[in-house]
Amino acid sequence: MYKLKASEFRPKHFRLDVADRVATVTLNRPDRKNPLTFDSYAELRDTFHKFQYVDDVRVVVLTGEGGNFCSGGDVHDIIGPLVGMEMDALLAFTRMTGNLVKEMRQCPQPIIAAVDGVSAGAGAILPMASDLRYGTAKTKTAFLFVRVGLAGCDMGACAILPRLIGHGRASELLYTGRSMSAEEGLAWGYFNELLPSDGLQAKAKDMAQTLANGPAFAHFMTKKCLHQEWNQTIEQALETEAEAQAICMKTKDFGRAYHAFVAKQTPVFQGD
Amino acid sequence: MYKLKASEFRPKHFRLDVADRVATVTLNRPDRKNPLTFDSYAELRDTFHKFQYVDDVRVVVLTGEGGNFCSGGDVHDIIGPLVGMEMDALLAFTRMTGNLVKEMRQCPQPIIAAVDGVSAGAGAILPMASDLRYGTAKTKTAFLFVRVGLAGCDMGACAILPRLIGHGRASELLYTGRSMSAEEGLAWGYFNELLPSDGLQAKAKDMAQTLANGPAFAHFMTKKCLHQEWNQTIEQALETEAEAQAICMKTKDFGRAYHAFVAKQTPVFQGD
Amino acid sequence: MYKLKASEFRPKHFRLDVADRVATVTLNRPDRKNPLTFDSYAELRDTFHKFQYVDDVRVVVLTGEGGNFCSGGDVHDIIGPLVGMEMDALLAFTRMTGNLVKEMRQCPQPIIAAVDGVSAGAGAILPMASDLRYGTAKTKTAFLFVRVGLAGCDMGACAILPRLIGHGRASELLYTGRSMSAEEGLAWGYFNELLPSDGLQAKAKDMAQTLANGPAFAHFMTKKCLHQEWNQTIEQALETEAEAQAICMKTKDFGRAYHAFVAKQTPVFQGD
Repeated sequence: MYKLKASEFRPKHFRLDVADRVATVTLNRPDRKNPLTFDSYAELRDTFHKFQYVDDVRVVVLTGEGGNFCSGGDVHDIIGPLVGMEMDALLAFTRMTGNLVKEMRQCPQPIIAAVDGVSAGAGAILPMASDLRYGTAKTKTAFLFVRVGLAGCDMGACAILPRLIGHGRASELLYTGRSMSAEEGLAWGYFNELLPSDGLQAKAKDMAQTLANGPAFAHFMTKKCLHQEWNQTIEQALETEAEAQAICMKTKDFGRAYHAFVAKQTPVFQGD
Repeated sequence: MYKLKASEFRPKHFRLDVADRVATVTLNRPDRKNPLTFDSYAELRDTFHKFQYVDDVRVVVLTGEGGNFCSGGDVHDIIGPLVGMEMDALLAFTRMTGNLVKEMRQCPQPIIAAVDGVSAGAGAILPMASDLRYGTAKTKTAFLFVRVGLAGCDMGACAILPRLIGHGRASELLYTGRSMSAEEGLAWGYFNELLPSDGLQAKAKDMAQTLANGPAFAHFMTKKCLHQEWNQTIEQALETEAEAQAICMKTKDFGRAYHAFVAKQTPVFQGD
Repeated sequence: MYKLKASEFRPKHFRLDVADRVATVTLNRPDRKNPLTFDSYAELRDTFHKFQYVDDVRVVVLTGEGGNFCSGGDVHDIIGPLVGMEMDALLAFTRMTGNLVKEMRQCPQPIIAAVDGVSAGAGAILPMASDLRYGTAKTKTAFLFVRVGLAGCDMGACAILPRLIGHGRASELLYTGRSMSAEEGLAWGYFNELLPSDGLQAKAKDMAQTLANGPAFAHFMTKKCLHQEWNQTIEQALETEAEAQAICMKTKDFGRAYHAFVAKQTPVFQGD
């Protein structure tokens, strides 16, 4: 089957490192807190799209350079041009940003966001749309669309954020645009863990490596089911999982785990 | 376009104050802890219905007089007559109460509940169906339908409460009818904040004014999306938001925010 | 109408005690931490199926013997045979386990899980699929499917767990298979309460008796609505509840509550 190599991708608008089956996407305009631009949105969307076809990436780490994650859409590069655009161009833009989230949820690899400092606007959406989130005491997460006169319904926030932190808390953040502190984010289930800034990247990579060394095919199926069952009935979800898990029982990793257990050894998963 | 003025409404069964584009609905039978009656249900339903057509209200505050929010459906005025009613009349009643919740979710204005003291039965549903909730240390929230021999599935509780506080906690409250303390409500994400009793109204009004002074058109869209995406797939939600946000990018407030930012000023939103 | 008696059931693979309209299902192979087998899965599924037709059970308590709840599918009795099975047999197995959850959610009686010690794999799913959950400081809950090379999407976990503890926390547990501590389970809304080990069974039975002595018909309707409204729109949920509650208003228990209230007495519910 035709497969791509993520290690051969050469993105222009962010850094991509691929090693040991972990791809690390680093937003790298640290002098401006790693804002997004039309170009970086499109390239992120296309890169996550292509991740479904690669065979050298099992887990993605998403992070920012220089102590901040991402300040969101750049005011000069993005907001300025949007003001005064015609509807067709505006809709093309909002669909592009939404499609970035869609590709993040559609790609098979679990995405681990390592989020220090500023995480604002679309720069808050990207961790929200990831599978796991690590922060630091300095992480400030702000769904601040209202501050620029827009609605909180941006890139899936009204659908996803309530499922992470509860509908009432999400409503407050989306109506007011206020920062969620790191402590709130941890207490509310947004962050999986808070780390010291100098331990954040190591934790994300360590978890990524752990997952990459695990039964990758099964991890891909877990992600697919979390996505598929988003608004299924319980009965539909049970059939979705019955089929998905039966497929996973045909993987070699399932046999490897069993044989290791019988031999009182730790299983070594291959991902197939 | 034809518009109503909420300031011209003259409700008989609760107080309605409209000032600075904030409507305050106050349940005002404090001697009996502000119970609901057939008449007040219907009038509340119709008032929230008409809010979608007014042009002088951007945010609604919902509160009670005399240190309590609402004791729910009055035992003598409501429960007595219901006992022995025929099915068509019972269904007309349960649809009327459900329609009050529907109108609260359908009206464009964010609703801020300021809840002190007793909040029981339908008097717990009304804050639950609001967008933001403020309480005090004395607030007691009880979905106590089971205490009168009824099911917890009243006015949307089995749908909405689990999304606010989690499915397991909601199940306990609905099966047992026990009071949720204010501290639990805060820890579980039901209340956005607890205030001293003498600061509760001020906080609700302050937040209402803040939202009313903000980009109201965008706030209305945030509420609409939170509602629309309740059980959409993630892909559907992303398209819902792409369209909604593109529309918001055509508002003047979006331009006002951008131009204020460039001029290093604080934007003054007009709501259009 | 044809009714079964749960007190006449004679299950072979677990203990079933029926007293005072409470059925207690006890997994009882304590020497091996109460693992599940092909036979016990099937018998549990069929027993919960038949609970919808009995007239002597209003609440179910689900627990394990000997200080542990359940270690999940037995490695030798279940995982061994599954390795190498053909797809039709695998799918028959995963549908059988999923159908156990389906029957637990379809049977009218609220299910109270009393969970001490090990609660792993399918042994974590059973409490997850219950209505209320009590634990102890020693309870270790692990959705550890990934440890045997499988996906986290097993028996509805990707649908139900996110609604109990939030989507981000559920994702972590399902991707990593790590244990959730009792304290985490309480803080996250998974457990309704933690008890000392020697008080766990009493608490579960006490709550079961309280519910069994309550308006059972209404409790059944609460469970049905929590299930039906899982992925309905808010409007659909409001109509579901309007119909359900109108039906409950035709029960005698509703009248009993009213008349007791008027007489300043405590209502004695009969469940009809």
